[in-house]
Amino acid sequence: MTKVLVLGAGQLARMMDLAGSPLNLDITAFDPRTNRVVHPIANDYVLGNLEDGINNADVITAEFEHLAHDVLEKCQASGKLLPSSTAIKVGGDRRLEKDLLESCQVANATHKIIANYDDFKMALSQLSLPIIFKSALEGYDGKGQWRLKSMDQAEAIWTEMADFIEQAKTSVPQAIVAEQMVPFDREVSIVGARNSKGEIAVYPVTENHHTNGVLSVSLALPVSTELQQQAFEVFSKITQALDYVGILAIEFFQVGDELLVNEIAPRVHNSGHWTQQGADTCQFENHLRAICALPLGNTELIRPTAMVNILGEDSLPEAVLAMPGVAIHWYEKEKRAGRKMGHINLCANSDIELANKLVQLADILDAHAYPDLADFAQQLKQKVSI
Amino acid sequence: MTKVLVLGAGQLARMMDLAGSPLNLDITAFDPRTNRVVHPIANDYVLGNLEDGINNADVITAEFEHLAHDVLEKCQASGKLLPSSTAIKVGGDRRLEKDLLESCQVANATHKIIANYDDFKMALSQLSLPIIFKSALEGYDGKGQWRLKSMDQAEAIWTEMADFIEQAKTSVPQAIVAEQMVPFDREVSIVGARNSKGEIAVYPVTENHHTNGVLSVSLALPVSTELQQQAFEVFSKITQALDYVGILAIEFFQVGDELLVNEIAPRVHNSGHWTQQGADTCQFENHLRAICALPLGNTELIRPTAMVNILGEDSLPEAVLAMPGVAIHWYEKEKRAGRKMGHINLCANSDIELANKLVQLADILDAHAYPDLADFAQQLKQKVSI
Repeated sequence: MTKVLVLGAGQLARMMDLAGSPLNLDITAFDPRTNRVVHPIANDYVLGNLEDGINNADVITAEFEHLAHDVLEKCQASGKLLPSSTAIKVGGDRRLEKDLLESCQVANATHKIIANYDDFKMALSQLSLPIIFKSALEGYDGKGQWRLKSMDQAEAIWTEMADFIEQAKTSVPQAIVAEQMVPFDREVSIVGARNSKGEIAVYPVTENHHTNGVLSVSLALPVSTELQQQAFEVFSKITQALDYVGILAIEFFQVGDELLVNEIAPRVHNSGHWTQQGADTCQFENHLRAICALPLGNTELIRPTAMVNILGEDSLPEAVLAMPGVAIHWYEKEKRAGRKMGHINLCANSDIELANKLVQLADILDAHAYPDLADFAQQLKQKVSI
Repeated sequence: MTKVLVLGAGQLARMMDLAGSPLNLDITAFDPRTNRVVHPIANDYVLGNLEDGINNADVITAEFEHLAHDVLEKCQASGKLLPSSTAIKVGGDRRLEKDLLESCQVANATHKIIANYDDFKMALSQLSLPIIFKSALEGYDGKGQWRLKSMDQAEAIWTEMADFIEQAKTSVPQAIVAEQMVPFDREVSIVGARNSKGEIAVYPVTENHHTNGVLSVSLALPVSTELQQQAFEVFSKITQALDYVGILAIEFFQVGDELLVNEIAPRVHNSGHWTQQGADTCQFENHLRAICALPLGNTELIRPTAMVNILGEDSLPEAVLAMPGVAIHWYEKEKRAGRKMGHINLCANSDIELANKLVQLADILDAHAYPDLADFAQQLKQKVSI
C-alpha cells in the first residue's frame, strides 16, 4: 500500500483521500496550523508531527502552494515530494510564475514587479489603465488585489499596498505584480495530469465564473478542438519546463479565440471539481495516480457537468438532493461568510438539459447565497438554445 | 451533522463512509470481532465500545445480517436502528425469510425446514431431486450448502448436516432449509431503497454470475419494462411488509419470464456495487439518504456497467487502470484465498462496447484468478451482437 502525505489538511486533501482510499492508497494530511499529521477526514485523529509524516510517507504532495519554504525544503530533501518544491513555489509566487510564463513564451498579461514606490511609479508610466495589482505571495480567491481605474486613486492604493508589503509575514519578501487588465470575453481553465514519464492527460477546457473574486460556477461542456489544442499546448510547455508530476491547473483569459494565461495552480483545483461526476477518473484520483506512478485515467467528458460552489452556507434545501444528476460534496467546515463550504455537481445528457437544470437549481437555492446563479443560468440557456 | 453507526466494519461500512462523507454524514463502524467502534476507513482509530457507539449515534444501521441477537436488541431498544431488527433477522434466517415470502405471496422455490432426521426424511419424500440444502443461519457466499442430486448421497449429506446443526454456535437454534432446485435461465437481483414515508427508488434489475457459489460478475444493462415491473412489485411487497427503511436487495432465479425469489439481503449488496459508477446516486449513498430521512437519489442507469469481483487477489495488472471507463475499489483487506478483496467497475456507452471492454479486461486479467470471465465476456458479446 502506497502511503501519501498531503501538505495541507483542507477539502482538497479530504477529497484526495475519498478518491485514493478505493485504490488502497493510505492518505494522511499535514495541517500547517497545528504542525500535526492527521487523518484527512477524521481530522481529530493525530498521526504525528511533520518529521513522522515525512518518514512514513512513500510520496509527499501538496494541496496548496502557500506553504512555508522550510516545510517545502524538508519535504524536497526527503526525495519524496511531487510535484517538486520548485513547481510549488512557482505557483505560490507571481514573480516566479511570470518568469516561467515568459521563459516558456506563453501568452499572458503585460506586467511589472513592484517592490517599492519607484517601481510603482514606473509601472504606472509603462502600463495603461485599468491596471490590476496582485500580491506576489499569499493572494488567492481575490484577496490581496487592487484595481486602478483612474489615476486619482493611485496614491490611496499605493498607501494600502505599501502597508500590505510591509506587514507581510512571508518567509521571502512580499511584492506586488502590476498587470495590464485584460478585456476578456470569458475565463476558462484547463486541468490536467502529467506523470514522471512525461505522459499527459488533460480534461476538457472548463468555463469559470467568479462572484466577488471567488469561483462560483464551472461549466464542462463539449469544447472546440482548436481551443482545447491551444490550452493543451500551454499545459504541455509549462509542465515540461517544470518537469511536473501531478495535477496542474492553468487559468486563462479568453480574448476572441486567444488564450492568455492568468495564473497557474500546482495542485488539484476548484475548477476541476466537476470531474468527480463528469469524468471516468476525477482530478483527485488522477493526481494520486500521477504521483504514485500508476497509469493515468481517462479524462474525457462523460456528460455535460456544472459545478456550483457553496459559499458561506452550511445547509441546502432538500429539493436539491432530489434532483436527478445532482451530487453534493460538503467539506465539513465551520460556517463563515464567503467560505468555501462545499460544492454541487450537476450532470445532464445535453447542454440544453444542463442549462435547464441550472435554471431549476437556481430556483431552488436562496438567491442571496447564490447571487449570480439565476442570471448565469438564464444566459447559458439562451446561449445553448441558439 | 447526522451521526451514523454501522454494525459491521467491513467493506460495506467502508464504502458507506466514502459515500456518506461528502454529505457531511459522520459514519462509525462497530466491529463485532473486537467489540469496538472504529473509523470505517482508519480501522485502527478506536472510538469506544458498542454502548458508546449507540449513545453517540443518531441512526444505527447494519452492513450484514448475521449479527448476534443481543447486539440487535440493544440497538433496537435505542430506537435508532434502521432497518428494524426484525428486518435484519429475516435476512439472517432462511426460516423467517421463507415465512415472509409466503405471507407476501411472492413466488419462491418450494421448501421444507429441517431440524432433525425425521424432517430430513419428510423433505426427501415431499421434494423431488435435485434438492439444495441451505443452513438457516450464517450461510452466505455458498457456505453451509449441500446439493443432493441422487438418493445414494442422502445419508452422507445428512451426517454432514447433522454435525453442522449440532456444532452451530448461533444464538438461536440452527436448522436447514431444503429447497427444490430451480432450473433457472439466469440469476438476477434488484437493489432499491425505501424511506420511512414509504417512497421507493429501485435500480434496474442486474444480471449476476456466480463462480463456485460466490458472485463474480454483475451486469447492469437496459432491462425490459415487464421484468423491471415484476421485480419492483416484489420489492414493494416485501419492503412494505417489513416497513423497511434503507437499501434492500432481492436475488431472483429467472425461469422464462418469471422471477422466483432466491433470497433477500437487508442491506447494501454486492450486486449493487456497479451503482458507484453506473448511477447518479450509488446504493451506499441511497442507503444513508433513506435512513437519515434525506430525499432518495436518482436510481436510473446512466450507462451500461459491469462489476467484476476481485476474489483472493491483492493486485491487478496496471493495464486495467489504463482502460477508459474502469474504476477500481479495493477494500484494504489481507489476502486470503477466495476472499472478496475489491471489485472493478467497468462502464461503456453501449451494450456492445461493454461486451468488448469485458473481453479486453478478461484478456488482461490472470485467467486463473478470474476463471469464468473470458467465456462469460464472449457469451455476452454474442448475445448483444444479435
